Amino acid sequence: MLSNEGKPMYALKYSDNYIILPSALGFELRGNIKATELDFGKTISKTDSKPSRYFNDHFKVVNIYRDSFDQTWNPVWGEESEIRNHYNELLVDLVHSETSERMSIRFRLYNDGVGFRYEFPGNQNLNYFVIKEELTEFALADDYFAWWLPGDYDTQEYEYVESRISQVPKHFQNAISGNSSQTPFSINGVQTSLLMKTDSGLYVNIHEAALIDYPCMHLLVNPRKKVLVSHLTPDAQGWKGYMQTPCSTPWRTVQVTPSAETMLDSRLILNLNEPCAYDDVSWIHPVKYMGVWWEMISGAGSWAYTSDYPSVKLGKIDYAQAEPNGRHSANNENVRKYIDFASANGFDALLVEGWNIGWEDWADCSKDYVFDFQTPYPDFDLEALNEYARTKGIKLMMHHETSSSVRNYERHMEDAYALMNQYGYDAVKSGYVGDILPRGEHHYGQWMVNHYLHAVTQAARHRIMVNAHEAVRPTGLCRTYPNLIGNESARGTEYQAFGGTQPNHVTILPFTRLNGGPMDFTPGIFQMDLSTFTNNTSKVNATIANQLGLYVTMYSPLQMAADLPRHYAQFMDAFQFIKDVALDWSESRYLQAEPGDYVVIARKAKNSGQWFLGGVTDEQQRTFDLALDFLEPDCNYEATIYRDAPDADYRTNPQAYEIVKQTVSREDIISITAAPGGGFAVSFDALN
Amino acid sequence: MLSNEGKPMYALKYSDNYIILPSALGFELRGNIKATELDFGKTISKTDSKPSRYFNDHFKVVNIYRDSFDQTWNPVWGEESEIRNHYNELLVDLVHSETSERMSIRFRLYNDGVGFRYEFPGNQNLNYFVIKEELTEFALADDYFAWWLPGDYDTQEYEYVESRISQVPKHFQNAISGNSSQTPFSINGVQTSLLMKTDSGLYVNIHEAALIDYPCMHLLVNPRKKVLVSHLTPDAQGWKGYMQTPCSTPWRTVQVTPSAETMLDSRLILNLNEPCAYDDVSWIHPVKYMGVWWEMISGAGSWAYTSDYPSVKLGKIDYAQAEPNGRHSANNENVRKYIDFASANGFDALLVEGWNIGWEDWADCSKDYVFDFQTPYPDFDLEALNEYARTKGIKLMMHHETSSSVRNYERHMEDAYALMNQYGYDAVKSGYVGDILPRGEHHYGQWMVNHYLHAVTQAARHRIMVNAHEAVRPTGLCRTYPNLIGNESARGTEYQAFGGTQPNHVTILPFTRLNGGPMDFTPGIFQMDLSTFTNNTSKVNATIANQLGLYVTMYSPLQMAADLPRHYAQFMDAFQFIKDVALDWSESRYLQAEPGDYVVIARKAKNSGQWFLGGVTDEQQRTFDLALDFLEPDCNYEATIYRDAPDADYRTNPQAYEIVKQTVSREDIISITAAPGGGFAVSFDALN
Repeated sequence: MLSNEGKPMYALKYSDNYIILPSALGFELRGNIKATELDFGKTISKTDSKPSRYFNDHFKVVNIYRDSFDQTWNPVWGEESEIRNHYNELLVDLVHSETSERMSIRFRLYNDGVGFRYEFPGNQNLNYFVIKEELTEFALADDYFAWWLPGDYDTQEYEYVESRISQVPKHFQNAISGNSSQTPFSINGVQTSLLMKTDSGLYVNIHEAALIDYPCMHLLVNPRKKVLVSHLTPDAQGWKGYMQTPCSTPWRTVQVTPSAETMLDSRLILNLNEPCAYDDVSWIHPVKYMGVWWEMISGAGSWAYTSDYPSVKLGKIDYAQAEPNGRHSANNENVRKYIDFASANGFDALLVEGWNIGWEDWADCSKDYVFDFQTPYPDFDLEALNEYARTKGIKLMMHHETSSSVRNYERHMEDAYALMNQYGYDAVKSGYVGDILPRGEHHYGQWMVNHYLHAVTQAARHRIMVNAHEAVRPTGLCRTYPNLIGNESARGTEYQAFGGTQPNHVTILPFTRLNGGPMDFTPGIFQMDLSTFTNNTSKVNATIANQLGLYVTMYSPLQMAADLPRHYAQFMDAFQFIKDVALDWSESRYLQAEPGDYVVIARKAKNSGQWFLGGVTDEQQRTFDLALDFLEPDCNYEATIYRDAPDADYRTNPQAYEIVKQTVSREDIISITAAPGGGFAVSFDALN
Repeated sequence: MLSNEGKPMYALKYSDNYIILPSALGFELRGNIKATELDFGKTISKTDSKPSRYFNDHFKVVNIYRDSFDQTWNPVWGEESEIRNHYNELLVDLVHSETSERMSIRFRLYNDGVGFRYEFPGNQNLNYFVIKEELTEFALADDYFAWWLPGDYDTQEYEYVESRISQVPKHFQNAISGNSSQTPFSINGVQTSLLMKTDSGLYVNIHEAALIDYPCMHLLVNPRKKVLVSHLTPDAQGWKGYMQTPCSTPWRTVQVTPSAETMLDSRLILNLNEPCAYDDVSWIHPVKYMGVWWEMISGAGSWAYTSDYPSVKLGKIDYAQAEPNGRHSANNENVRKYIDFASANGFDALLVEGWNIGWEDWADCSKDYVFDFQTPYPDFDLEALNEYARTKGIKLMMHHETSSSVRNYERHMEDAYALMNQYGYDAVKSGYVGDILPRGEHHYGQWMVNHYLHAVTQAARHRIMVNAHEAVRPTGLCRTYPNLIGNESARGTEYQAFGGTQPNHVTILPFTRLNGGPMDFTPGIFQMDLSTFTNNTSKVNATIANQLGLYVTMYSPLQMAADLPRHYAQFMDAFQFIKDVALDWSESRYLQAEPGDYVVIARKAKNSGQWFLGGVTDEQQRTFDLALDFLEPDCNYEATIYRDAPDADYRTNPQAYEIVKQTVSREDIISITAAPGGGFAVSFDALN
């Protein structure tokens, strides 16, 4: 609809009640740049009028198209094997009454929400333009309760704040914790996906889908009006999006569901992404992995090989002559031990961080040539270890920490991927720690959004799967590019070694961070007291049963068992669940959930048909009565239940669990109690 | 020396007279960034104290070393085959009395000036640091007369202003003309190499040598004190240089000579660069070339293939289906004609611009994926034309216009160079028109300085020679990287088609722009009235004899005959000089020169030993009496003199020339009159 001034507006109702009140749409654009060939014949001239102009009113409707769509598609991997994409579409073609510039707005209305995007047709007055700001409003019908992260151009690695939307500015400063790169831009800023709840019990989630070559969207809260307005990540000069028609923005999404469980069941974000871009996906597969990683994160080992140098210039020093620091974890002997353990327990892969030269001074130096991604340390025999892993039936997983020196990464990318092909690596964990080079660009700006996808598509040419850490938050692109098997893009388990994370964190992530795609959360910590093996005083705020539950509640085709082999060796009966649990599913059932409190999910493995169940709670002890009606009819199962011991508590007794087996069928209801910071996991083995 | 406050100072005298009065040295640095490993064991923390601090006082002298050096080296190509590098060296090791940070200053004193640089040893308190500004002063002993270009972060393509140094601010605004990317930063700013003249007749030139991974230096004029102070090109955030010890700055140079001719003979800049970095230089050679270029620059043809599209997305449109615009110069038929003409006249190569898709909207759109450097237009048969050229004994020269979308260029660079190898191209003209992407970076900042050299060294891996236009001004790097056979980096002949350039321009460039390395000036225009073949009303401000003289006065191993074959065909007797003139020299004699007025040079060809002579004048008619005492003894020569006709004038009669032959020997003095905007050229053929 258009206001009297020709302002495009929209609103969203659920069962006749406004969820989003009439809200404005549009842009503020930079003054046009002359888009024609430089007039070399006469004199060099350039028109670059910097003042901005509003592009959110004086529109007329030219055409309205309506359509509907109903198709079921099969993801390469996912929470279910079939996803129904069913929507009614409304396309409104607009023309600006003064400039004759054309813009369309496409709405797709689903049972669980709406997605809309701006489209700019080609062959018109508007060829190139620069977005100063997107002015998409989300006028909330009330002061919704929200689970929010403080808005930031460079990190998502915060803990959630629970408050009314109007209270965001009040709590903002306290929500900021330290990070290697962070740019909180306004005390009114929040991140998406933003989960909210109405007083009538509806769940509302604002996010975006298919973020490609466009800056990531944040939301600015107007606390008095309860209006959220889009705020795009700027470039080094403060401009947002550089656009060439024909083009469109990502989808802006509002999911609305009557319950928390149905919110978890929403596939709206994936549905708004394009189908798979690859003809051949045979090389893409789920990966269960261990890693030479937690021992460095916890402080027991180091990525760096030597302490000889206060700073390192690659190619200018001879590591073979350097004194080893004695703490370098990625050494042949240690890696072989991990390979042995991972192989013996059926894992697919072993990540090794710190294998390549440069870790002595990699972080926060604005260092351009920080890594070459190709040269191993003297004590890491690239060829021999890969061969050893091969004989043991597993793969090594490559690690490319870029230190956010992105030009350097792109300069070496082709050779680095070729090296992976040479030695048989088929997956890479990449990282973007620290401030972005080129300086002034942000992790979530258009420049970097372009890069992340470039890295994924270039990897696909080499049949390599990508798990990017510190990259922009996922928006469902894994549908189109399923070799993007994981992302971090939120506060992961590593923070349990950086001072800890509250137990409720994992009860919120499935609604927010996972809305856009899987997270490499790296669960599975069994030794919660890091001081037992390091001088790190951090405690992991979880029980062992909680850690097991995460393998089901935190969906990912890429799952890590993050702890050290020797810690698992102490609890092999509990470790059995990690060995057994599937990674890819034909069905998922969201049994009980409330953000910030608990999440319980059952899933059916795609190939075996085996059911698994997992649950986590926050700092409260909770008892769940769980109907097993998802199980197949006429079948009995042996349920192996991994649960907190009665005296378990994440603060005082995190390793107390018990494993019980009982015969169950779909008629049964089982009752499981999760300790504070606890959880549970169940595997079901069909008996007949 | 150090002042009482521990400020490092220097001064320069010539024959007991101060050229540079005592002048301060040092830096303003950004507050240190913590350079150690992130403390992952406990909590993520980053120390990034932004305030700056001065690093130009409180120094103590720790050591002073003196040395001398005298060695003769042979450039791969050049104005002479042997260059003597003879200097006395003074190295002063300093330590900061408060921070214990160490810095050294190395001076090299030559007969024709001084070079000095800052060096930062490794293994000390200072590992990583960020330069906010370099504070190198050049306190002039008087208000020198100067030939200067207005300071700019993005272009050097201005005309020179002649004034006293104190008058720079007054003339600055008038010195600015339009450019596709320009950032004049201060009315007190001037570029280097800055040529000056003292009232006592000494010539003084301030420049820099060996600019590697550091921002290009400009100079800020204090008009009252006559002090020049360094001003580095900033990055997007305003910082200048990101440094890691051990490291050093480029050399800051002050050349001082008793005459203009000896200034042209100075090799100080080359001598301060490192020796050749390549073991094998057999693939590097001088190139005389023509180009499918002037017809587009003048407006007679176009780089673009079609006018069908207001904007183009590579890979999204099918050029085979597009309507040709009928003006596309890089078409098979036209290119073959150029090949035929260039081959018949003994050229080595033919440049073809506009051969690759994307020229429909390449400029000034902040367009990331603007070219792929690999896909030809439908009417350019890459394989067939290269094969045709091969059968004709010449090579095609590749063209890579980047439109300053530098990430995009680097993403395609390897494939683009490989394509050149595949088809036999051994030289590329690259271009950086328009504002830099990443946005906020400048043509002369550290980010781009790093890129230009990256492009050159990557090209070397493919045995490719580079001629980069719009890149940073040369600082003698061609000694170290002799595949950098050319640069533009100044106002070239193209501006004669953009409204014109004053005749005195070419009498200044040899002292300034060419001080750092050869220029692809693209001389050789014979048809001065562009309206005879275009609707361009620009006039080329030169006579034909002037254009011939440039092949000797503007030294370059890469020389173009820039005009159209059909224009040369009208004057084949004059064209003979372009065919004959050598590109590489064993000796050069700077016979008569005064910046802004005239330059006359004689050179001896490296292999044949043949002598050539060339001269150019400004808008004044001048008669030169030239002693031929450079010729070999006991030998007579037939001198072929290409000179302006008596009635020639660049304004009214630019094509009037005469060619006379006379027998001469080293005892002779010949008298030649150059018309206003004119010049002359002479080739000497030994008769016995």
